Amino acid sequence: MTDKRLKIGVIGASGYTGADAVRLLAGHPHVEIAALTANAQAGKPYGALYPQFAGLDLPPLVKVEAVDWQDIDAVICGLPHSTAQDVIASLPEHLKIIDMSADFRLRDASVYADTYGRSHDAPDLLAEAVYGLSEHYRAAIAEARLVACPGCYPTAALTLLLPLVAAGLIDADDLIIDAKSGVTGAGRSLKEQNLFAEVAEGLHPYGVAAHRHAPEIEQEIALKAGAPVTVSFTPHLVPMNRGELLSVYARTRNGAKAADLKKALSSFYADNAFIRIVDDVPGTRHVRGSNFCLLAAFDDRIEGRVILFSTLDNLVKGSSGQAIQNLNIMFGLDENCGLRQQPLFP
Amino acid sequence: MTDKRLKIGVIGASGYTGADAVRLLAGHPHVEIAALTANAQAGKPYGALYPQFAGLDLPPLVKVEAVDWQDIDAVICGLPHSTAQDVIASLPEHLKIIDMSADFRLRDASVYADTYGRSHDAPDLLAEAVYGLSEHYRAAIAEARLVACPGCYPTAALTLLLPLVAAGLIDADDLIIDAKSGVTGAGRSLKEQNLFAEVAEGLHPYGVAAHRHAPEIEQEIALKAGAPVTVSFTPHLVPMNRGELLSVYARTRNGAKAADLKKALSSFYADNAFIRIVDDVPGTRHVRGSNFCLLAAFDDRIEGRVILFSTLDNLVKGSSGQAIQNLNIMFGLDENCGLRQQPLFP
Amino acid sequence: MTDKRLKIGVIGASGYTGADAVRLLAGHPHVEIAALTANAQAGKPYGALYPQFAGLDLPPLVKVEAVDWQDIDAVICGLPHSTAQDVIASLPEHLKIIDMSADFRLRDASVYADTYGRSHDAPDLLAEAVYGLSEHYRAAIAEARLVACPGCYPTAALTLLLPLVAAGLIDADDLIIDAKSGVTGAGRSLKEQNLFAEVAEGLHPYGVAAHRHAPEIEQEIALKAGAPVTVSFTPHLVPMNRGELLSVYARTRNGAKAADLKKALSSFYADNAFIRIVDDVPGTRHVRGSNFCLLAAFDDRIEGRVILFSTLDNLVKGSSGQAIQNLNIMFGLDENCGLRQQPLFP
Amino acid sequence: MTDKRLKIGVIGASGYTGADAVRLLAGHPHVEIAALTANAQAGKPYGALYPQFAGLDLPPLVKVEAVDWQDIDAVICGLPHSTAQDVIASLPEHLKIIDMSADFRLRDASVYADTYGRSHDAPDLLAEAVYGLSEHYRAAIAEARLVACPGCYPTAALTLLLPLVAAGLIDADDLIIDAKSGVTGAGRSLKEQNLFAEVAEGLHPYGVAAHRHAPEIEQEIALKAGAPVTVSFTPHLVPMNRGELLSVYARTRNGAKAADLKKALSSFYADNAFIRIVDDVPGTRHVRGSNFCLLAAFDDRIEGRVILFSTLDNLVKGSSGQAIQNLNIMFGLDENCGLRQQPLFP
Repeated sequence: MTDKRLKIGVIGASGYTGADAVRLLAGHPHVEIAALTANAQAGKPYGALYPQFAGLDLPPLVKVEAVDWQDIDAVICGLPHSTAQDVIASLPEHLKIIDMSADFRLRDASVYADTYGRSHDAPDLLAEAVYGLSEHYRAAIAEARLVACPGCYPTAALTLLLPLVAAGLIDADDLIIDAKSGVTGAGRSLKEQNLFAEVAEGLHPYGVAAHRHAPEIEQEIALKAGAPVTVSFTPHLVPMNRGELLSVYARTRNGAKAADLKKALSSFYADNAFIRIVDDVPGTRHVRGSNFCLLAAFDDRIEGRVILFSTLDNLVKGSSGQAIQNLNIMFGLDENCGLRQQPLFP
Repeated sequence: MTDKRLKIGVIGASGYTGADAVRLLAGHPHVEIAALTANAQAGKPYGALYPQFAGLDLPPLVKVEAVDWQDIDAVICGLPHSTAQDVIASLPEHLKIIDMSADFRLRDASVYADTYGRSHDAPDLLAEAVYGLSEHYRAAIAEARLVACPGCYPTAALTLLLPLVAAGLIDADDLIIDAKSGVTGAGRSLKEQNLFAEVAEGLHPYGVAAHRHAPEIEQEIALKAGAPVTVSFTPHLVPMNRGELLSVYARTRNGAKAADLKKALSSFYADNAFIRIVDDVPGTRHVRGSNFCLLAAFDDRIEGRVILFSTLDNLVKGSSGQAIQNLNIMFGLDENCGLRQQPLFP
Repeated sequence: MTDKRLKIGVIGASGYTGADAVRLLAGHPHVEIAALTANAQAGKPYGALYPQFAGLDLPPLVKVEAVDWQDIDAVICGLPHSTAQDVIASLPEHLKIIDMSADFRLRDASVYADTYGRSHDAPDLLAEAVYGLSEHYRAAIAEARLVACPGCYPTAALTLLLPLVAAGLIDADDLIIDAKSGVTGAGRSLKEQNLFAEVAEGLHPYGVAAHRHAPEIEQEIALKAGAPVTVSFTPHLVPMNRGELLSVYARTRNGAKAADLKKALSSFYADNAFIRIVDDVPGTRHVRGSNFCLLAAFDDRIEGRVILFSTLDNLVKGSSGQAIQNLNIMFGLDENCGLRQQPLFP
Repeated sequence: MTDKRLKIGVIGASGYTGADAVRLLAGHPHVEIAALTANAQAGKPYGALYPQFAGLDLPPLVKVEAVDWQDIDAVICGLPHSTAQDVIASLPEHLKIIDMSADFRLRDASVYADTYGRSHDAPDLLAEAVYGLSEHYRAAIAEARLVACPGCYPTAALTLLLPLVAAGLIDADDLIIDAKSGVTGAGRSLKEQNLFAEVAEGLHPYGVAAHRHAPEIEQEIALKAGAPVTVSFTPHLVPMNRGELLSVYARTRNGAKAADLKKALSSFYADNAFIRIVDDVPGTRHVRGSNFCLLAAFDDRIEGRVILFSTLDNLVKGSSGQAIQNLNIMFGLDENCGLRQQPLFP
């Protein structure tokens, strides 16, 4: 790596994932933020949207059409699903693209159509896209032009479950995933249910049996299980900004115990700095603001069952942090570069 | 009912459940608060502990030994488990007792010993005590001298599950209960894990596979199932004061669907003002500060599975509110008396 | 008072103040909720907007034009400022009206125009309206047809300051009011600044030197001071749902001390159940969900200065509770009727 | 600067300021954490107290007496006031010491005695200590062996006020400081008032006219004003973890306006990366987790008055961050080294 910094654009920089990408990129030693787009806010300085960055020397927000891509090496795309695909299809060939939307995560266009209620506009790109679960698809990510970063819930679920399914330690067809998330998972859009007074001092499930991250989780587990899989997946909204914890209830195979599962996870992730297997119960505050994902396993009261936990910061390892991890992989940088911030607790 | 008010003592009035009993009793038209005890705080006016009540005309805190019980009709006991049993054993015979501790909930003294790590000091009272799940044991409560109010989690779990198990609609041996609770469930005791900065902006499980409410839930379900039951029960701590939501993952029997379960619940609770079966996802904020318990059922993505929810305010229906409901039943008052406050939202 | 219940309509029932009026009216023994309006939500059951009330027997939401006012005795109006005046002007003469908006609070139409950026459409009604600070204008409220409930900040400020200014104990021309409020003060409208993630884990001032409640505070203090008054007033947004605390920094006159001020306040509010003068520092949690307002006074480090506090629940004493208090006064009911709920803490 | 890393010890590493020092030191490129002490927790790995750091290669906690100081270059001391002075007095001469306690902040031992209710055990060290307000005492800090980091409130107050008093733009004898702080300011000690349920969904003042940071603020302003000063200082506890905002109400001199004050502040802090003068209202969330301090000024409604704001993260610029900034100054490192993390929002 020479001293020349990579020039990075952030498309859809007005949302929370875009802002967290900017936060992390601003501290990345080999990167320069060369363009920031947000069509509805074009013309404004970025600090007008996110005053915490007013002191940084950042390019102003422009429309995506107004960017001169010639000198830019890669983009991180923080657009909402459905709008990302057309924008990405319009980008020049030389750009590497790390997409944080849901548009290129589902490998099968018909599953995409069923899940998102519209046909896919860029099926060729969909076929080309690499699923960006960093620790599992490193080699393909390194070669990819377009990487689709997994959703926050799938990142937490798959980091926990893929090695266990692959090792035959748990049943893939009786997975019950009870997920809890902070509110930033819903983005910065104006919806009544995201108002402070609707969320504070309360808790509720949402998207029961119908959340769009379930097919994504199923797709990847099925690849490891070698057969179609249906999971039970129920997210809940918790009155906090960041953080996500998945409690997974599973049946073990062949008498495997929690200790066996932890050993398998520890072995699989031995050389991965961001994935930590812990003995105590993990909490979201142990990962806040960082790119870590903590995993844990306990024997259940019911014989043959285990209780598994996976926790991460939905805006970092669940989105922007993994995006930058993939950026590092794509450009041959140290994978942890710019992502070494410790969690912020309290 | 004449105009004469019942004279009620609150033993262990310094904790949150004691304070919520005072809050509700202060608005109860047929009750007078005649004694308040808290041994470590004896001598103080109650408003010194709970300034919100400084304007009420309440008796000062005294030691339990200092109370003249002669004119008192009943006590609500808010002592911690293990300390309640000796105090209750020492009370005069004429008193009706509503205990909010865990000391008289487990019908079998050996299960109590296993669960709470000590032998029971008052096995005779244990045998006499009636389990105070109001909607299920009304007749026995009406005749009881000592009522053991269920734990907050068991109240939520059993209100949801007992009618379904009794009706043979769900399997009793594959119940997975993922519980989420606000912080008041831990009481007012000084523990590092209950400090604001340890809890706010975070979420974590606790008591994994080892929470003391599991045997209580199992005991009551087993009675309905007619066989021993083991449940999977995992509580999580959520950064809010009040409220509890249980997400229960169950297998149905004989092809029963969520709609069948809702019909059974609606039928069972038809004349019970505090139990409401809802169609949308329930949230803790819909019950905050009230004696309501909301139940809901949804078909899962996995065939043959359902996702069930139960939510209540842990300090009200999960503790003090149910205690007063039982008081009303024991004295032949309108069961809803003093408990008609609507939820406080936002 | 006979057993006949007053029939009350709530206009603009979709907002938080409307909902809190419903919460309190539902427990009022002499009142029946006869109409609920919300133009944008007309046709929906009220429980669709506020599920906590789904179990109550309430009329469905209708447009204000669709209400048959004939049998209705009074309305509580929870519309936003600017929209309330036209609706209120259109109501039939027989209705008593308690308006919670800002439209009839400023006695001078030109001050209204300056403050709200538009001329007043109903200056005759403005002249007729009685300022509904219950404890200070009881006699006029009792005779009024139209009562303008004070803003939440003015209620807290004036309850504290009017008796002190009237008694000549403090300077009226050097009043510094630092106000802190929960988020419900901003209503249920969709604004980015009210999103959970924008508010939680943070604090900031707003409306600096320009908040619309300042002229209202000045108007009423000037009446007592007998001369125009300008106050320093700075509100801050705090990450909580309900509650408001004003810290007022004042110079005393003639060597008056905090003790003198407390004596004057205690004397003034001697027979007023909702106003309590406390010795310890008051907190918003001591009034949450209740109609209480707590006042306190301390000598400052700077000689001749005092530090004063006033706290209330912005949705109750700061809005719906005071509205119902005024309703009680207007109809000759016990002033405290329906408002005796104790604060909800924790 | 060679590649050799400074060896740093953290004394009193069990509290929140100690933990935040560890967080920041862990990312400091020229520093190695060589010792961690916490007498009551000696023997434990640091990750047992702060699981977020369990993956770091840190020395275990030891008693302060057990440290071999020989190879250590400097210590950051996070002990509580009163206990710090004896420990610091016992340290070997070669160590540079950055104390975050209150023990060496007050220059006059008699003011210390009055404020902290005990005589000072190390008056010679008190005389030697340099007040560590980095931007104001850089030269002295660079030469110091013992630096006393200012309190969190004094840092916010003095950063705002010192340049304005020095420039004669505001009166020093009518300063009213209304401070609001998150809960971590109270540390990790077990006190009922710091329990989650005591703090969440509420707000209250504390230490009214008696907070220990007032004499510290007065001491430093008096030095600039050239005369004794008494300030009005009232802190409030806000339900959030981190962050502090001071609203200061001041009279200007010679007709100065807010714009003049901002110009003076901008000029004074022109080359200081961590102090930013902003035009919009600042919020604590714009500094969370960072070493920034934001300042703002507005003209008040009252002629001749201004409303000033200062906000910082109490654990960073208000404590550990400023400690590390001082460490950098003391060892001739780039002052911003290890402190460039952007704020974490949301």
